[in-house]
Amino acid sequence: MSAGVAVKRPKMMSSQLEEKIDWKKRKAEIKESKRQSKEAKLIKQLEKQKQQEAAEKAKLEQQQNKTGRAYTVSVALPGSVLDNAQSTELRTYLAGQIARACVVFCVDEIIVFDEQGEDVKSVEGEFKGVGKKGHACIQLARILQYLECPQYLRKCFFPKHQDLQYAGLLNPLDSPHHMRIDEESEYREGIVLDRPTKQGKGSLVNCGMRKDIRIDKQLQSGLRVTVQLNKTQNQDSKVYQGIVVAPHVPRTEGGLYWGYSVRLASCLSAVFTESQYKEGYDLTIGTSERGSNIDQTTLSPFKHLLVVFGGVQGLEASVDADQNLDVTDPSVLFDLYLNTCPDQGSRTIRTEEAILISMAAMRQKIKAAFPDVS
Amino acid sequence: MSAGVAVKRPKMMSSQLEEKIDWKKRKAEIKESKRQSKEAKLIKQLEKQKQQEAAEKAKLEQQQNKTGRAYTVSVALPGSVLDNAQSTELRTYLAGQIARACVVFCVDEIIVFDEQGEDVKSVEGEFKGVGKKGHACIQLARILQYLECPQYLRKCFFPKHQDLQYAGLLNPLDSPHHMRIDEESEYREGIVLDRPTKQGKGSLVNCGMRKDIRIDKQLQSGLRVTVQLNKTQNQDSKVYQGIVVAPHVPRTEGGLYWGYSVRLASCLSAVFTESQYKEGYDLTIGTSERGSNIDQTTLSPFKHLLVVFGGVQGLEASVDADQNLDVTDPSVLFDLYLNTCPDQGSRTIRTEEAILISMAAMRQKIKAAFPDVS
Ligand SMILES: C[S@@+](CC[C@H](N)C(=O)[O-])C[C@H]1O[C@@H](n2cnc3c(N)ncnc32)[C@H](O)[C@@H]1O
Ligand SMILES: C[S@@+](CC[C@H](N)C(=O)[O-])C[C@H]1O[C@@H](n2cnc3c(N)ncnc32)[C@H](O)[C@@H]1O
Repeated sequence: MSAGVAVKRPKMMSSQLEEKIDWKKRKAEIKESKRQSKEAKLIKQLEKQKQQEAAEKAKLEQQQNKTGRAYTVSVALPGSVLDNAQSTELRTYLAGQIARACVVFCVDEIIVFDEQGEDVKSVEGEFKGVGKKGHACIQLARILQYLECPQYLRKCFFPKHQDLQYAGLLNPLDSPHHMRIDEESEYREGIVLDRPTKQGKGSLVNCGMRKDIRIDKQLQSGLRVTVQLNKTQNQDSKVYQGIVVAPHVPRTEGGLYWGYSVRLASCLSAVFTESQYKEGYDLTIGTSERGSNIDQTTLSPFKHLLVVFGGVQGLEASVDADQNLDVTDPSVLFDLYLNTCPDQGSRTIRTEEAILISMAAMRQKIKAAFPDVS
Repeated sequence: MSAGVAVKRPKMMSSQLEEKIDWKKRKAEIKESKRQSKEAKLIKQLEKQKQQEAAEKAKLEQQQNKTGRAYTVSVALPGSVLDNAQSTELRTYLAGQIARACVVFCVDEIIVFDEQGEDVKSVEGEFKGVGKKGHACIQLARILQYLECPQYLRKCFFPKHQDLQYAGLLNPLDSPHHMRIDEESEYREGIVLDRPTKQGKGSLVNCGMRKDIRIDKQLQSGLRVTVQLNKTQNQDSKVYQGIVVAPHVPRTEGGLYWGYSVRLASCLSAVFTESQYKEGYDLTIGTSERGSNIDQTTLSPFKHLLVVFGGVQGLEASVDADQNLDVTDPSVLFDLYLNTCPDQGSRTIRTEEAILISMAAMRQKIKAAFPDVS
């Protein structure tokens, strides 16, 4: 029975049958149908515009009603993932994919750890540009920082040409703290300007608006700061008024996602021990296809969640490379060790894919752990 | 209070404090510690090897116990997504990302639809290579097909150089039907060989093994076929024995994921009407940030699920471009219209990201709809 034999190619569609046609009638029909469809299109457009306006209003209201988010989410991964890219351009693109994956899921901190003993501890100093191999941690960290920085501040914080070598290839993060010039917002990121300020008066800050902002403090010029703008502004004044707040305030008080910070760790264990949070991470999750099935897991509420991803060789390799760790089985390092994609159809999932997949699967679980947060 | 001011840069770590040291003692200590760590490493390696062996055995057993999967999952997206890439290389890479996203979630069919009136209905004919813009549907379809084809068959089905222009950049799918030469499997994909066969004897098929396979039928040479190998083989014979089966058999009987087929659709509505499944799709899901919250959704069991993604302008644009559709609101076309990533931290999610995110969120729901399938 040859019905069993099928070739996996898209089927061809038979070409349309031709017929004899009454051309005069046909033309009139076409004209009428064109008129109708034009009218229909216009109505469509109107409807669409109304819908969009309604949606935007709803979004704004929702944002205003939002309560703060107290918890944080951190993601850690080895810089070595970059060495898995096949060209300098793709190396940059991969860094951009990681940044976007973290932003989509409102990740507050990205930790780039070293599993190859490069032993870099800071992204200060001159950046040598994106090469094909090596310096993966520092390159990943630098591109992550570049992308996180609002566009209007980049010329100040990333002046060097090499940083921008392939910046044109990077997809923008489009996160809420990347404001356009006339966008209204309670909070804005800015840079303290180098302008003489009179005693008793605060510094001026450029927040990418049409006017600069006079803040409540005198600060060193060149600092990046988070500014909360006063609710009412004197429109005649040459400057806006605002106060400097901690970078977590837009999140903890405004309920807004406010980008991520970037931290370098010299090995996997330093991811845990050098936390920027005094209390450390109170829920830690390792990810692996050898982990336990995420579908059978619920998360309990936490203050600081840490989710750790491995590189090409998995977290086993990161553990092996770490002189401070005397274990072989990575699972013992974490509160949970999860397979976030049971029944995967590919033998391996790449780290950049695993971030999107895992965070998507965890989003529902996190939500369930905080039922009160809208 | 300047404690409120924080700069979002990785903190510097203080350099290690230096001390006076008893060098002789220190050397002995170092030697001893090296010996110990060498021993520890060896034990680690042994443990690891044992673990891996156990994991592989478990995996094999699991596969053997697997029952068939009766349902199918199809994904549709506009070819225009390729025009969103910023270079010819990235255009190719994007196609590869889409292929991988679908394979990770065991998608059985990918439908590339036209929302720009290019009106291509087949990928037959000469392929002009990947250009910067235009011909997006046909290019996407061709790259998807290329990647789906097991490596050992590619030289037969994709002989032209231009198809492979950037093939080096594509990450392999690593799906179960992409076998290595000595891998054991009940099923294999193959190509019917152009060899004279005696009356009453079936054709020979190349399945990328050390021997060819004699099948039960005489078929036209050049056809791609799915072969089920006989359970017992005469090791002395010059060929293996097998029978030709429909391409769905590895899935429906073996419970294996067996790659995807690719279909071109000339517009969004043709995605629905030209289904390869006689009964059509019995569960259709549209995706949009304006859809309803997936967390509040459960899926009922289905035979053929269709999940549709939009391009840069969303499904609204696909609906607008479709002459056959008189609606403006895409949601009316689908059984469900879902926001698969509530509270997204970026203003827009790209289509290639949305596939991974949406399928990850739906995987759990699909699983819940089929509790009996292991
Ligand atoms: C290329 S994979 C590592 C593969 C490596 N051969 C192994 O066996 O772990 C890179 C990373 O993606 C993540 N990953 C891959 N598949 C996963 C899954 N099914 N569940 C959770 N995380 C996964 C893990 O963090 C893993 O370290
Ligand atoms: C770049 S987005 C389209 C954005 C477009 N401006 C819109 O408003 O729809 C491309 C596609 O990704 C998918 N997508 C994006 N965000 C999504 C979300 N939150 N939930 C489900 N699908 C989403 C949809 O299929 C969408 O058509």
